[in-house]
Amino acid sequence: KSVKNWASILFHDFALATVFVSDAQYNRNIHFDSSPQAVRLYLLYNHWAFKVLLYFFIMVNLLYIYLELLCLIVFTARLVHYAKVIPPVKFWKDPKNICIIALTLVDMIIYGSLEAAKIYCVRWSRVLRPLLLVNVTEGRQLRRAFRSIRNALPQIFYVFLLFMFSLLVFSLMALKLLGKRNLKNIEGYPYFTDYLEIVFQLYVLVTTANSPDVMMPAYNAGSLFTIFFILYILINTYIFMSVFLAVVYNSYKKYLKEEIRQLVRAKRYKMARAFDVLQEQKEGCSQPVLTQASWNHIVRQVRPDITDAHRDLLWSVCDDKNQGVIGKVAFVQLADLLNIEVITLKSRPHPLQNLFPTIYLSAPSRLICRLVQHRGFVIAFDLIILVNAVFIGLDEENPLISNSEWGFLALYMLEILLKLYVFEPRSFFSRHSFWNWFDTLIVLSALIATIINSALKSSAGYTSRQILDIVFVLRVLRLIRVVDSIKRFRIIINTLIRIGPAILTFGQLIVVVYYVFAIVGMELFKNKVKFFDNSTHPEHAYCGNPLLKGHSFAQLGYCKNNFNNVVSSFILLVELTVVNQCDGFASVTHVSARIFFVLFHIVVVIVIINIFVAFVLEAFFVEYSVDKSQLQTSLEKKIEELELAVAQEKVDDNLVNAMETIVNDLTTGQATKPNLMFKIASKRYRTVDALLQRMFEADIDPEDFAEIDESQARSYDPRPVSNVFFYLFSIRV
Amino acid sequence: KSVKNWASILFHDFALATVFVSDAQYNRNIHFDSSPQAVRLYLLYNHWAFKVLLYFFIMVNLLYIYLELLCLIVFTARLVHYAKVIPPVKFWKDPKNICIIALTLVDMIIYGSLEAAKIYCVRWSRVLRPLLLVNVTEGRQLRRAFRSIRNALPQIFYVFLLFMFSLLVFSLMALKLLGKRNLKNIEGYPYFTDYLEIVFQLYVLVTTANSPDVMMPAYNAGSLFTIFFILYILINTYIFMSVFLAVVYNSYKKYLKEEIRQLVRAKRYKMARAFDVLQEQKEGCSQPVLTQASWNHIVRQVRPDITDAHRDLLWSVCDDKNQGVIGKVAFVQLADLLNIEVITLKSRPHPLQNLFPTIYLSAPSRLICRLVQHRGFVIAFDLIILVNAVFIGLDEENPLISNSEWGFLALYMLEILLKLYVFEPRSFFSRHSFWNWFDTLIVLSALIATIINSALKSSAGYTSRQILDIVFVLRVLRLIRVVDSIKRFRIIINTLIRIGPAILTFGQLIVVVYYVFAIVGMELFKNKVKFFDNSTHPEHAYCGNPLLKGHSFAQLGYCKNNFNNVVSSFILLVELTVVNQCDGFASVTHVSARIFFVLFHIVVVIVIINIFVAFVLEAFFVEYSVDKSQLQTSLEKKIEELELAVAQEKVDDNLVNAMETIVNDLTTGQATKPNLMFKIASKRYRTVDALLQRMFEADIDPEDFAEIDESQARSYDPRPVSNVFFYLFSIRV
Repeated sequence: KSVKNWASILFHDFALATVFVSDAQYNRNIHFDSSPQAVRLYLLYNHWAFKVLLYFFIMVNLLYIYLELLCLIVFTARLVHYAKVIPPVKFWKDPKNICIIALTLVDMIIYGSLEAAKIYCVRWSRVLRPLLLVNVTEGRQLRRAFRSIRNALPQIFYVFLLFMFSLLVFSLMALKLLGKRNLKNIEGYPYFTDYLEIVFQLYVLVTTANSPDVMMPAYNAGSLFTIFFILYILINTYIFMSVFLAVVYNSYKKYLKEEIRQLVRAKRYKMARAFDVLQEQKEGCSQPVLTQASWNHIVRQVRPDITDAHRDLLWSVCDDKNQGVIGKVAFVQLADLLNIEVITLKSRPHPLQNLFPTIYLSAPSRLICRLVQHRGFVIAFDLIILVNAVFIGLDEENPLISNSEWGFLALYMLEILLKLYVFEPRSFFSRHSFWNWFDTLIVLSALIATIINSALKSSAGYTSRQILDIVFVLRVLRLIRVVDSIKRFRIIINTLIRIGPAILTFGQLIVVVYYVFAIVGMELFKNKVKFFDNSTHPEHAYCGNPLLKGHSFAQLGYCKNNFNNVVSSFILLVELTVVNQCDGFASVTHVSARIFFVLFHIVVVIVIINIFVAFVLEAFFVEYSVDKSQLQTSLEKKIEELELAVAQEKVDDNLVNAMETIVNDLTTGQATKPNLMFKIASKRYRTVDALLQRMFEADIDPEDFAEIDESQARSYDPRPVSNVFFYLFSIRV
Repeated sequence: KSVKNWASILFHDFALATVFVSDAQYNRNIHFDSSPQAVRLYLLYNHWAFKVLLYFFIMVNLLYIYLELLCLIVFTARLVHYAKVIPPVKFWKDPKNICIIALTLVDMIIYGSLEAAKIYCVRWSRVLRPLLLVNVTEGRQLRRAFRSIRNALPQIFYVFLLFMFSLLVFSLMALKLLGKRNLKNIEGYPYFTDYLEIVFQLYVLVTTANSPDVMMPAYNAGSLFTIFFILYILINTYIFMSVFLAVVYNSYKKYLKEEIRQLVRAKRYKMARAFDVLQEQKEGCSQPVLTQASWNHIVRQVRPDITDAHRDLLWSVCDDKNQGVIGKVAFVQLADLLNIEVITLKSRPHPLQNLFPTIYLSAPSRLICRLVQHRGFVIAFDLIILVNAVFIGLDEENPLISNSEWGFLALYMLEILLKLYVFEPRSFFSRHSFWNWFDTLIVLSALIATIINSALKSSAGYTSRQILDIVFVLRVLRLIRVVDSIKRFRIIINTLIRIGPAILTFGQLIVVVYYVFAIVGMELFKNKVKFFDNSTHPEHAYCGNPLLKGHSFAQLGYCKNNFNNVVSSFILLVELTVVNQCDGFASVTHVSARIFFVLFHIVVVIVIINIFVAFVLEAFFVEYSVDKSQLQTSLEKKIEELELAVAQEKVDDNLVNAMETIVNDLTTGQATKPNLMFKIASKRYRTVDALLQRMFEADIDPEDFAEIDESQARSYDPRPVSNVFFYLFSIRV
């Protein structure tokens, strides 16, 4: 073979290994072709710009209906790209995306022609749209959430049946006990005489929306009837709702464990395949090995951002015995090793020290440094923030108070400048210094907004409401800073920050479910209730619908809670999630409209909110229980061995602020130490995925690289069992 | 020594050992004197009649205030009795009961004299009363619940501070964003202009009571403001409330483990002391041993109700090697062994078989037996119950339907009679046959009530509303039976039945907290709001308080929700637990009255309800995870070895109904088998305590009988650390 040909094969090998390693690192599970062209296309397929574009068009598709054709073209392009990447057999096995696009197209054509013929038609394909969000290759987290739900459903279903049974029995008892007593409710209608009405009212009582109104007529008739309601609330509101949570939580945990096991196995398999591509047969070794040169090449491809020193550190962890080559087991660790955030601390002197060494190292300058690093400096600025909070609360029309804002801004600017004087700027604005970035951005934006505001005021003589709003929001946001100085709060805040990305997953889940309900709700209730901005409009008092005259819905001014457009539908659905009230809509359409609201409550509150709560609970328990992984320990040990560790006494338990303290120590003193140090990032920046993985990966034999067999593969990149009941959830889930 | 003297000493030894064993079995932790007289008094002290009397008088004390002196005398008597039982030093170490009684007495005297002098005075000692319920020797479960709360408090406190911080920051932002826009709420008052008002409104939003009203003015002014509210609801209602649950649950679990450890150790220690009293030195044994005779004596004393055969079975489990004597380790198991419910099945023939053997064993009679035992029999009666449910739902004024009730009653009676014909009556009404008892009682009472009702109707010509109510309730209760025939439901129902006793403990806890709030509420709000039975009363429209004219409290007819007496206060507090609404009471007194309601919400909803949810969650997880204990396994093995086991295929997974099936098998066939069989009671009848104990007792060395040292004793029979903050909770907790 010619050298050129050989080089191209080598290049392809590295490219393939790189793809395997980075797939393992980020837990991507796509079975792509291993031909050179497919690998190149696959790399392009995973490019962030394409992903952003796709999500942008999904959003456009969800929001604007007339741009649909353009969106469809984008989706089709992406799908064709995907088809080129993976083997054709695998592509045709999962025809859901094609189906969605084809169905949407068919629906568009039907709707267009019927519209042209002026025949009323429902755009039913809209309900399918959010499934695109679930079904795109990138929606792994979302699919996992859907899988959790699907797995919890059978268990929830039985508890739900029991709950319904209890509801029906209680309703029957209410009918028998209260139906014949000629009681009237507050509106003067007969109370508890219709069985279905009772069932509905007692269901709403579970959501606590109509408490205590629903029991008042009975209570007024006799105090003993409250025993019935108290028993009902105890059993159905408290016990059954807890049981729902218990069932959801239990199946969530069980399923999560299996999911993580599959993920770890898939990752191992990919790393082993990468190793197979790169392996060499060295003399003196019975097993194939990987040389440091190939290893370095791969790591440079996968993580171009890490320094040479950091890479050498990782190598020395892998090649524990200093043999110059590593085996399969050591190579497989790489994916996890790359996920451990190692902070490289360069002991760079402050730029000012280089420019004006005598001034910067003079006694007054050193005093400033010591003052700024003192604990009192933080406390002083916390106090200033609290005083600022009081001033914000006071009336800003008082000139003294509105001018004091300039003083506070100056103080905050001074704080930032002092810190920049003392700490090395690049370390100060390093990637993990969340609060430094936060502070600087907030203070600078507040400064700019305040200047614009007063410029407008003095020149044009008026105050822009929008800019003032921004100024206020920024001022108040500044107060949040206080929280981070108190250690007890930091633990809670850290956990909350860590579960942030997962909350976004649940956000997507909620958006998918809300969208489906919003589309159905808009078909059912569009323009039944109208809101008039002008309160003198004659129809304003009854929301433009005579059926609402005198109805509490109109009296309480709920007219803007309607299904007239996507935005107001979403806001209404949020309200329904908190308190499920729907009397108004049942009045303007039909009593059976209540089914829609009950269904929404079951899906969102009983299932999704409980999964969310289970997730938050689990995240907190993981936080309370999981310690360092074995790999992390060995990495730390290696750092210490190489004497590159940051002095332990500086780290102590105050991990979060430690970084700042250390940076400052390095800049001011100790020139004898090596000019490069490593530290494993604090717990704050760990991902939930990594935490969960660590909880369960001990179960798996580290020498086990077996490819997942077909039955297991089905559940890890699952093609679900055909089941009519779960069809809705089975789209690529 | 004379024989008589020796006999009396022996008698005392056995009495002492008996007390130790039964204390270990029921986990009582009282350090009584071991003198003969004290032991006798201690036995009397634990007599159930005295306990019932005490609880009766506590209830009287809580409900009726003028019987106080009598109650005080009873409590003092009980306290004196207790003082005689335990060593004086220990008694005076815990002076809380004495303090409560003394304080109550002082308060009574002051109140009486001031009342005589007609000076207004608050009966402050009432708040102390519920502490008696916590502080009595029998309130172990309740004290444990209080301890759980006390241990969770510091953790909850920090999350609560963070929550309050978030609330204050959001309120400040709301004030700045919305306060200057001249918005009006639905009543026409300025919207979000007062900071404290905003804080309160946003706190209430967390309880979901004022959603969506609180956001409507802002939403009407601009849709973008909903972002503020949605963020607030997400963070404070969903995330923070989940974090509260996580924190409460986590500290609950941690504390529970320690608690159970202490309990197991205390139990071991007591069993070891009992062994020390009874031990003998046998030749050929290096260790002191216990003979079977002494063992039998002890078991007969502790559990007089178990049969000789059952006792022999237990002995054979303890004396595994058939040596005739047992050592300390084997003896210590006894307490747990006695707690495993073993069902003794005597293969008694049916009494009718003895009386009329030819008829009972004839072909038609056997056919009836086979029919009744068939699965179809259960299904048929389930269908009848469902048909009955439909009939109950229909209008009972229709003569056809009201007469059909007689038919259903006849069918149910027939079912019970048939079962009694087929199954041995004593087995049918055995202690564990919950549903048999339930059925029979419900059907018989329904029969009696229906007969009385129709007798009244035909003779006096009128229908008593009360009796009719009872008839209806009984009819509806009959429907519950259906649930037990469906296996999937049975698992859930079993867990619910098992956590029943623990829910009672939480009931006591709630009563204690409610009582304190009810007493304070009555002092603050008594007669501020009045309810008039007669709706034509001129003050009816505004609850007797002119301040409520036109207020939504009066308009919604909430007048009966008041603090005028203990019963209505309790009902109001239940309503406040579900949805915290207090505008009415703030209007008739002062805005600061809201503090009372916020405090109630914090204590009851954030703390106690979360502990309750944590408890239900834990009970379900225990249910899903814990298998048989080692002891239970060895007992089962022994039963099988002795060939006394009930055939396994009869037991299968349908454990609950198994018993019935087995009894019937024994009565109808297989005369060759021994006439006595054992079976370990199904999971349904296990206690939560025993389950929890099993989860953690593996940690403790079975050979470890060390007495709990002073520091540990403090936490297991805890005298709490002096701490002003926790003083309220520290009364014998």
